[in-house]
Amino acid sequence: MGGMYEDLKGPEISSVLSESSIILLPVGAIEQHGPHLPMSVDRVIAEETAKAIVDQCGDDLDIWLLPTLSISKSNEHNWSEGTISLRYETLMAILHDIGESLSKTSAKKLVLLNGHGGNTTLLNTALRELRLNHSLETFLIHPALPPAYGGSSTEDELGMGIHGGRDETSVFMFLRPDLVNLSKAERRVPEQLAKNKHVKFGGSVSFGWLSNDFHEDGYIGDPTGASPELGEKLFNAAVESLCEALSEIKSFKFKE
Amino acid sequence: MGGMYEDLKGPEISSVLSESSIILLPVGAIEQHGPHLPMSVDRVIAEETAKAIVDQCGDDLDIWLLPTLSISKSNEHNWSEGTISLRYETLMAILHDIGESLSKTSAKKLVLLNGHGGNTTLLNTALRELRLNHSLETFLIHPALPPAYGGSSTEDELGMGIHGGRDETSVFMFLRPDLVNLSKAERRVPEQLAKNKHVKFGGSVSFGWLSNDFHEDGYIGDPTGASPELGEKLFNAAVESLCEALSEIKSFKFKE
Amino acid sequence: MGGMYEDLKGPEISSVLSESSIILLPVGAIEQHGPHLPMSVDRVIAEETAKAIVDQCGDDLDIWLLPTLSISKSNEHNWSEGTISLRYETLMAILHDIGESLSKTSAKKLVLLNGHGGNTTLLNTALRELRLNHSLETFLIHPALPPAYGGSSTEDELGMGIHGGRDETSVFMFLRPDLVNLSKAERRVPEQLAKNKHVKFGGSVSFGWLSNDFHEDGYIGDPTGASPELGEKLFNAAVESLCEALSEIKSFKFKE
Amino acid sequence: MGGMYEDLKGPEISSVLSESSIILLPVGAIEQHGPHLPMSVDRVIAEETAKAIVDQCGDDLDIWLLPTLSISKSNEHNWSEGTISLRYETLMAILHDIGESLSKTSAKKLVLLNGHGGNTTLLNTALRELRLNHSLETFLIHPALPPAYGGSSTEDELGMGIHGGRDETSVFMFLRPDLVNLSKAERRVPEQLAKNKHVKFGGSVSFGWLSNDFHEDGYIGDPTGASPELGEKLFNAAVESLCEALSEIKSFKFKE
Amino acid sequence: MGGMYEDLKGPEISSVLSESSIILLPVGAIEQHGPHLPMSVDRVIAEETAKAIVDQCGDDLDIWLLPTLSISKSNEHNWSEGTISLRYETLMAILHDIGESLSKTSAKKLVLLNGHGGNTTLLNTALRELRLNHSLETFLIHPALPPAYGGSSTEDELGMGIHGGRDETSVFMFLRPDLVNLSKAERRVPEQLAKNKHVKFGGSVSFGWLSNDFHEDGYIGDPTGASPELGEKLFNAAVESLCEALSEIKSFKFKE
Amino acid sequence: MGGMYEDLKGPEISSVLSESSIILLPVGAIEQHGPHLPMSVDRVIAEETAKAIVDQCGDDLDIWLLPTLSISKSNEHNWSEGTISLRYETLMAILHDIGESLSKTSAKKLVLLNGHGGNTTLLNTALRELRLNHSLETFLIHPALPPAYGGSSTEDELGMGIHGGRDETSVFMFLRPDLVNLSKAERRVPEQLAKNKHVKFGGSVSFGWLSNDFHEDGYIGDPTGASPELGEKLFNAAVESLCEALSEIKSFKFKE
Repeated sequence: MGGMYEDLKGPEISSVLSESSIILLPVGAIEQHGPHLPMSVDRVIAEETAKAIVDQCGDDLDIWLLPTLSISKSNEHNWSEGTISLRYETLMAILHDIGESLSKTSAKKLVLLNGHGGNTTLLNTALRELRLNHSLETFLIHPALPPAYGGSSTEDELGMGIHGGRDETSVFMFLRPDLVNLSKAERRVPEQLAKNKHVKFGGSVSFGWLSNDFHEDGYIGDPTGASPELGEKLFNAAVESLCEALSEIKSFKFKE
Repeated sequence: MGGMYEDLKGPEISSVLSESSIILLPVGAIEQHGPHLPMSVDRVIAEETAKAIVDQCGDDLDIWLLPTLSISKSNEHNWSEGTISLRYETLMAILHDIGESLSKTSAKKLVLLNGHGGNTTLLNTALRELRLNHSLETFLIHPALPPAYGGSSTEDELGMGIHGGRDETSVFMFLRPDLVNLSKAERRVPEQLAKNKHVKFGGSVSFGWLSNDFHEDGYIGDPTGASPELGEKLFNAAVESLCEALSEIKSFKFKE
Repeated sequence: MGGMYEDLKGPEISSVLSESSIILLPVGAIEQHGPHLPMSVDRVIAEETAKAIVDQCGDDLDIWLLPTLSISKSNEHNWSEGTISLRYETLMAILHDIGESLSKTSAKKLVLLNGHGGNTTLLNTALRELRLNHSLETFLIHPALPPAYGGSSTEDELGMGIHGGRDETSVFMFLRPDLVNLSKAERRVPEQLAKNKHVKFGGSVSFGWLSNDFHEDGYIGDPTGASPELGEKLFNAAVESLCEALSEIKSFKFKE
Repeated sequence: MGGMYEDLKGPEISSVLSESSIILLPVGAIEQHGPHLPMSVDRVIAEETAKAIVDQCGDDLDIWLLPTLSISKSNEHNWSEGTISLRYETLMAILHDIGESLSKTSAKKLVLLNGHGGNTTLLNTALRELRLNHSLETFLIHPALPPAYGGSSTEDELGMGIHGGRDETSVFMFLRPDLVNLSKAERRVPEQLAKNKHVKFGGSVSFGWLSNDFHEDGYIGDPTGASPELGEKLFNAAVESLCEALSEIKSFKFKE
Repeated sequence: MGGMYEDLKGPEISSVLSESSIILLPVGAIEQHGPHLPMSVDRVIAEETAKAIVDQCGDDLDIWLLPTLSISKSNEHNWSEGTISLRYETLMAILHDIGESLSKTSAKKLVLLNGHGGNTTLLNTALRELRLNHSLETFLIHPALPPAYGGSSTEDELGMGIHGGRDETSVFMFLRPDLVNLSKAERRVPEQLAKNKHVKFGGSVSFGWLSNDFHEDGYIGDPTGASPELGEKLFNAAVESLCEALSEIKSFKFKE
Repeated sequence: MGGMYEDLKGPEISSVLSESSIILLPVGAIEQHGPHLPMSVDRVIAEETAKAIVDQCGDDLDIWLLPTLSISKSNEHNWSEGTISLRYETLMAILHDIGESLSKTSAKKLVLLNGHGGNTTLLNTALRELRLNHSLETFLIHPALPPAYGGSSTEDELGMGIHGGRDETSVFMFLRPDLVNLSKAERRVPEQLAKNKHVKFGGSVSFGWLSNDFHEDGYIGDPTGASPELGEKLFNAAVESLCEALSEIKSFKFKE
């Protein structure tokens, strides 16, 4: 069984959830994504991916979907009018509180499905906090793993299609075609980074950056070649792969 | 004009929003509501009310809807398995951060639409914080004003249908009939409070309470007489009344 | 028995206090009240009311008075030179600490007597925190209930005599006649609010305001008709009514 | 001129206070003082000393008295039922907020009059915070300087009459004779400390202690020889000396 | 020029440091590393690497070395007696404060050299905070990049030599041979993880873990094949590679 | 036995440490000390003193040395470029975390060896927090007790050689002669303070000060007469005296 966590009635929780249940929390963002995409991109992708997961493997894997955390830490876009960002402390506090609440149920596996690369390191930190403080088994998955954490992006973008680039734009075109205006999109790849061996996205040296550090337009990548067809392919592959990952999560044990 | 805030593209914000725009933030909750209602009640009612408002008067009043804050302060239900609650500090931090983000836009009016009575006093406190720290004009509205803050509830419930009672159950039956199980509902009215002149819901003396203080079932009121018809009437009246209120908010000025 | 909490000797606490004892904490404020009243108004009224309560019904109801919290959250007056205000976090921290300390005694009933309307929502929030975290039974009473929370004010002030208005000025004239200069007082009623159906003090829509939002003088109401005679009447009625309320508090039980 | 700060009317602040005004904040405590003294000792002594100072030299030195901070950090007595203690963070937050508020006035000199030795190091730390953050000139004075900070106590108590000992008991007997029960008092001097060269009250090595570390009765010193006559002498000498100190504070300048 | 930051005299700072100076902060840890290694491992490796860097390329690259942050976030070892760990909030606060202090100098490039994998995600988060709040250019480097962040570990350890494994043990044997007791070391590789496609160190799914989740001995890897010769090779390669990386950092520019 | 805490292996902790072990934590500072001394002064003196103590009496007294806390609260020098300072909250958080970690070991005695006078009051406050929250016996020692806390300084400096003065400069010349430039040093004694009876360093009235309040050069005292010979004498005397103090700490008991 599986479904929407919030649709459960209070007294049902103890009978429906068990140690092998998976609680899935989508984490979105409301932040500028350049002139071609709305601010909802990360929220929509995280939520739609989560729903497709529940449709595809929710019942098999006993997955219960929490309401999306729509707003998160988007402070690399604090310069931009419109972006709604939480401080890192606030996001950690939210996760703490959710973890504390869930620790009262029988469910012990919490999976964060993160649609916004700017959250990745903080959520990773939170995985341990939640394990330590609330004895949960915690996991972090992404519809699209950020290049800086082992993911990839198109060669044409020199691996730097990280915010509003081709892949993300394509997925969003598949999900909400009416909200994309590709005519506004241009190539915004910080070419000079490609010359570096160490200091680059996904390189051995991480660096702090704001989204307007590279270009005042605030998006990074080349969305000009995006298409809903590519988006559909990427989206479906992500759901497929994440169901596979969730299956591993379901049977995950620290000790044999 | 009006619509979904998140559907705006970053660079559109400065041209679309103006000083007379209203930003509307629904605040829900994921908390036990007894055996007859799912945990989503407050989230659903807040969000559906907000959407109906945008449909009915959003364009006229230039209302922009933020994604619902689905989880909030539900600590009167901390005893119950399943409820997801934020600490008060966390909720205040979220509101602070949203206020700070919005203060960078031209919009100056922020309206909180609160679906969960347990938030009311804290949100009220936040109104002033946001005004003081972010120079916003801030307002708090309710689909159904809690009795403790001037609202009413049915006489038959002795004015105490405050959590999962007749009115709330009815509205939810109208919005999500399939998720209600009225056969589980019983009368859970703390009759002894009615004898008090001062110490009662809406009385001159407020008091701290947890939802299992009165009865271990954790709901307060008498949902047995609930019906979708009553719910429809209450819902439509609320939307009507809130559009009227938002019209006052639109023209609100501190000084003539 | 009843009296000053602080006059008890350490080892007496365990024998003097019992579950039915009431701990009474007056909460004042040091904040501007216009040109006709000193900054002490809320502190004096809260403290004098508390003392009169102890005199009148303290022995009967086993009431133990804590020293007045003289300074509290007055940030609606932060613009004004002289006002001493705590941040909301600070006030919550104080109440937390007092609650934690009291939870080590046998007394289980804590009553906040609030002289400053700007604290009301925060203290209300604190009632639940203290109940939840320290297992206290917590109550909030007012010498004069603010209109925004169900109280009333004179018709002549259109119900808006909320800060330095007729009633408050009168009570203070009764208590400290030498500290009032009525010749400086004028009518400062924000008449335009009266036209509103929803957005007004005590209306269905709360709003964030600072005391100089309406008029740079920073008081709200019409103190010109104030008199010590009216003040005496109001004060005595308040003490009478609060002793009645405290009697209900004494016998208050969540479950019959 | 000088007097009660709170008696000033809001608009008077700017004309009455000047750079040479001194704001005086008494800091008390509500904490167990053994079986012979009530919990109010530090609150009463701080407040009475402050009032006597204002009487004796307030007008000359332009001193304005704030309401006593009755409750402070008394966590060395957390073991004892009845003691009301703030966490150190809470006390620092209060002082921060008061400093911030005062920094909006013309007064630049803030003097803390501390009646409770357990606060001394924290208040000392606060002096710098308030100077740094709010540009105030800040000072700390004591009715009786704790031995650990350069003060003295009777030889008969081996210099360890630090909490409820002879001097403090005497002063309190002078101020509130009816609240003292000397018949309950015994000698509670931790004699073994006197053998130490370094590790002792006022020695070169400070150490963390709780008031029941030495004896379960929780007071330290020998109050048996206390008398109101000694108290009167000590009290008057303190007021005399503090007026002298305040006179230095008045003319204090960092640079010649 | 380059050297020890702390050896500079106060007034020299403004002339010695410039926008192209690099401030280098080693971050160590004091935490259990199994029975074969002392708790100092991460502290020693971070510090020795930093010193070797300064020796090799400090003058060329204008690198100024701060004192090592010896203790950091080691809460995956909180179960173990002896480990000294900071909470994540504390570590973030330290980095905030250092960033704030440095922002007053002319130096704009801050490099964290992290010897403890448990800090990586938090330090990564801090990079952005420091860039945003203190306008620093911030970078994170590792003597040995953790597998979970793109680094590698020996095949024989199935890529899981992440805490006290072969490479780390070897480097430490090179640096402090007398402090290693290889006779106590055994193979502690959580073999079952290797079967996973997604949920493993460096896999697409991150997970929260404590160091005793896999085995009560608390180290992860197979140190049995460690040798000082391998250590020397790894250490020298790291210094070489990090000097190369620092050279990129020196010429790093966000915009061409 | 005694030595470096960090050199212990994890599993050794439980057998090596016992209730009578002393954990020694040196606290330094990186802060401007005028033009004649480097910023490392307090760090070096604290650390060298600690090492000398371990050499001289570490084995006898079972002392285990923690890595130096190099950076601490130096906010009296926040005006100066180069100084690295923690906020007081940060330093308290660090000490809390170290205390919590140590409380898991058998060692119960924690000694802070403070090289920076600006920390003294805060560390003193921390002694009680650590005792209360982590049941440690806590002590604070100084290489040179600040005059404000009972220490002395040369008569020639009128007792005000408190920051970069003769004694401190001498000790540092003994420890790091190459890093001192006495030719830059001048007399910087705030002579006017000497006229005060109460308001002065070590007087009965403490006051908040920043190091540039007295003179823009930021050091206080007269280092012109400093010499390595004097430094050696002072250093050796300090080590001697502190070993004596630690011997008292070792046998310290609250109750006989």
